[in-house]
Amino acid sequence: MTYCVGMLLDKGLVLMSDTRTNSGVDNISVFRKMHTWSIAGERVITILTAGNLATTQAVISQLEERNKAPSDRRPSIMEAPTMFQVATQVGRLLRDVIEGRQDGGMQGEGPRFTASMIVAGQIRDMEPRLFLIYPEGNFIEASYDTPFFQIGETKYGRPILLRGYDRRMTFEDAVKLLMVSFDSTLAANLSVGLPFDLQVLERDRFDPLHSRRILASDPYFHQISSGWSEALRQAFHSLPSYSFAEDSTPSDGAR
Amino acid sequence: MTYCVGMLLDKGLVLMSDTRTNSGVDNISVFRKMHTWSIAGERVITILTAGNLATTQAVISQLEERNKAPSDRRPSIMEAPTMFQVATQVGRLLRDVIEGRQDGGMQGEGPRFTASMIVAGQIRDMEPRLFLIYPEGNFIEASYDTPFFQIGETKYGRPILLRGYDRRMTFEDAVKLLMVSFDSTLAANLSVGLPFDLQVLERDRFDPLHSRRILASDPYFHQISSGWSEALRQAFHSLPSYSFAEDSTPSDGAR
Repeated sequence: MTYCVGMLLDKGLVLMSDTRTNSGVDNISVFRKMHTWSIAGERVITILTAGNLATTQAVISQLEERNKAPSDRRPSIMEAPTMFQVATQVGRLLRDVIEGRQDGGMQGEGPRFTASMIVAGQIRDMEPRLFLIYPEGNFIEASYDTPFFQIGETKYGRPILLRGYDRRMTFEDAVKLLMVSFDSTLAANLSVGLPFDLQVLERDRFDPLHSRRILASDPYFHQISSGWSEALRQAFHSLPSYSFAEDSTPSDGAR
Repeated sequence: MTYCVGMLLDKGLVLMSDTRTNSGVDNISVFRKMHTWSIAGERVITILTAGNLATTQAVISQLEERNKAPSDRRPSIMEAPTMFQVATQVGRLLRDVIEGRQDGGMQGEGPRFTASMIVAGQIRDMEPRLFLIYPEGNFIEASYDTPFFQIGETKYGRPILLRGYDRRMTFEDAVKLLMVSFDSTLAANLSVGLPFDLQVLERDRFDPLHSRRILASDPYFHQISSGWSEALRQAFHSLPSYSFAEDSTPSDGAR
């Protein structure tokens, strides 16, 4: 499994992904699921991937090939005029790779080769944009009503995102929020694992403001992980106590 | 979908279930998913159900029939000598109902008729026990290493249960914890809905200490729901801020 989140803020985009891939529970590897291409001062594009590793690697490799051989006719995401066209290209490629595998004698095993992706980035003179690409190749775009996308093992880490997100938040707070969301997921699901990749794309910068790999030994992540447990316990105790009285009037304040 | 939790404490058992059933998103009904049988001073048994409604109703109705017709040879959970045998009976019946439906011209559609159950209760002179019954009819029992079971839409509400549970907690705190877990699930998934059914089985009481239906208008649930949002926000802000500095030493204390 996997856990990746892309988040749209007033200040730009914040992205985080885990690195665990597994086939069953005993064939565990570390693979990067965050891939970035940029042209200084002109564009920056980051793709997060979830799903079958051979499928997502094939898509990323093909995107790379196209960037390296511009004489070929095939479209390159480095030349696409808008982020919408970048998302369209990635979606078509993803669909073609999945269909190709299904056609190649693998019919009936389709779902095993499925994958989804988050595409984030900005091109000069346009807004930062964030897309979620489905295995069918179609996609949706984030708005301030639905300002973040998750792929992979999305449920455990969702409640805190729903409650903590604010479009005006600082990058530092957004990273903290993602750390808490990843920590909740990690605590509940073995198939999501450290290290994590973190990237912050500031609006109109066209080059990552901040990129880091968060290792298992990361002191900040440890501080968040243990601090969050304690903070949750305190939050829980600050809620009014339940009363067994029939009228169900809650008692006032903490116990 | 559904969300049900059964929790084993030193003091006894606490159970909670939602009541929403849906076929698609536009065929929504309210059905009770918590069923209790008791003999004063001798035994109390509660079953929580998740999955296909026709399947779970068939199981519950058959259990009822057996209780009403003791002259029949079929085993009754009111006569089973241990909770283990109660779980065995419920498991067999569940498996038989699912298999019967599959055989009756519905082959290939098996998964649609699946269901799982939580069986909780106590029989005189024995410990309170808690079981999770799988659609295959086999089951597992809770222990103090794994002291609660969830069925249905389990993921959103799991992180807070993992962190908040303590076997020595009071019934009041356990109910509060369940309210928070249900609130997180409700916020993320349309297919889980109010009202909720709540039941507290005190050790050696053989009759529910407390049974209540929590309606959408319940003032305590509202207090928990809004209070938890605010408490989470405060907990989040109490965590140390992330720093973009390369050494990644976290700043001290809250911002």
